[in-house]
Order: sequence, then structure tokens, then C-alpha cells
Amino acid sequence: MAFPVPPIDEVDLGQVFRALADPLRRAVVAELVADDADAERACASFAMPVAKSTKTHHWRALREAGLIVQRDAGNGTFVRLRRAEFERRFPGLLGTVARLSPAGRVPHG
Amino acid sequence: MAFPVPPIDEVDLGQVFRALADPLRRAVVAELVADDADAERACASFAMPVAKSTKTHHWRALREAGLIVQRDAGNGTFVRLRRAEFERRFPGLLGTVARLSPAGRVPHG
Repeated sequence: MAFPVPPIDEVDLGQVFRALADPLRRAVVAELVADDADAERACASFAMPVAKSTKTHHWRALREAGLIVQRDAGNGTFVRLRRAEFERRFPGLLGTVARLSPAGRVPHG
Repeated sequence: MAFPVPPIDEVDLGQVFRALADPLRRAVVAELVADDADAERACASFAMPVAKSTKTHHWRALREAGLIVQRDAGNGTFVRLRRAEFERRFPGLLGTVARLSPAGRVPHG
């Protein structure tokens, strides 16, 4: 089951910046940007040292900001970057974020 | 009198993104970025269709996020982009914001 996401043209840049204001969400986005193949990833494969309800909140914030699609496969949830359409809508932003918040540096706390 | 601003190395990227989440603040930043001369500008010279207290809040958010310096000259307040040091700390971000939120399109409401 795919979680609903907004059409990319309805995504608000303010909402994008609010989503990216959180260091854990930036780290996730940077990790997704770093994978040129844009492979689907198990949500559980991301280092997120927070409670389950907080993870759920973070994934929703990223979905609603148009950055990712997410689906529930029964045995877990999976996520994929909306790279092409996000890049078309907000050119250069993903690259800038990935440079400023390098992948592999997941903040703790 | 210059308002206090954080040393650029103490500025948090999350705070920068929160500052940039507001369309009026993005418009101001885009307008400042568009002036290659980085001239000081009267705060009153920006189109900000909001209450005075809200303007004060917006300027403070931009100052605390390390984006601007501001001073009170008695006959008004003046503002300048911290372009060089901000660019050194967060390379590429000012340019990306200016491209995504072009100057001259001040949002109303």
C-alpha cells in the first residue's frame, strides 16, 4: 500500500524547508541523494535513533514535503526519493542539501 | 547600534532552514542576494505587507539564522547580507534560495 503524497506541483517550498530543518530528516535525504540508482530502501535500514512514533512523524514530514514516496509492504515500509520530479520543481535544492548535510553523519539525540 | 548576531560558526543549519521556510523572509533574502554590491538597505525599503511587530520578528529570525546584520541608526533600521561568511559556512545555499524564490515576487498575506 502506497502512502498518499502530494502532486509535486502542489508542494510548498516553505514546507520543504520545514522538513529539511530537522537534522535527522536532512541526514535521510542526504543518504537517499547519495544513491545515484535511486533504489527503494527499507525504512528500517536508516539509522534513526528515535522512538517509533517519531520515525513515523519524520517519514510523514518528508512525504508531505514531496521529497519521498513510501509504501507499506506488510513486512516493513519502503522509501524512495522523488528525485526527478523534485529536481524539476526545485532545481538544485537536493544537491545543496546533500552537500551541506553529508550522508553518513547521522545526528544523535 | 548594531543588533547582536551569532558568530557564523555557531549558526545551525536547522535554524537557517526554519528562517527560510517563510516566504516573506525568503523574498527578502532573495532581494539581498540579487544585489551583488551587498549594499546596506533600509529595512523600510522592503515590501513587507505585515504588521510592524511581525516585521520585527522576521528581521530577528534572519539575524539569528546568521543571514543578515542589522543596525538601528535612530532614523530607521538598516540591514546587510552576511554574504561572504554565510557562503563560506553554507556554500551554495544563498544562490539556491535566490533561484527558487526569485526577488521581486513578494508574497502577500
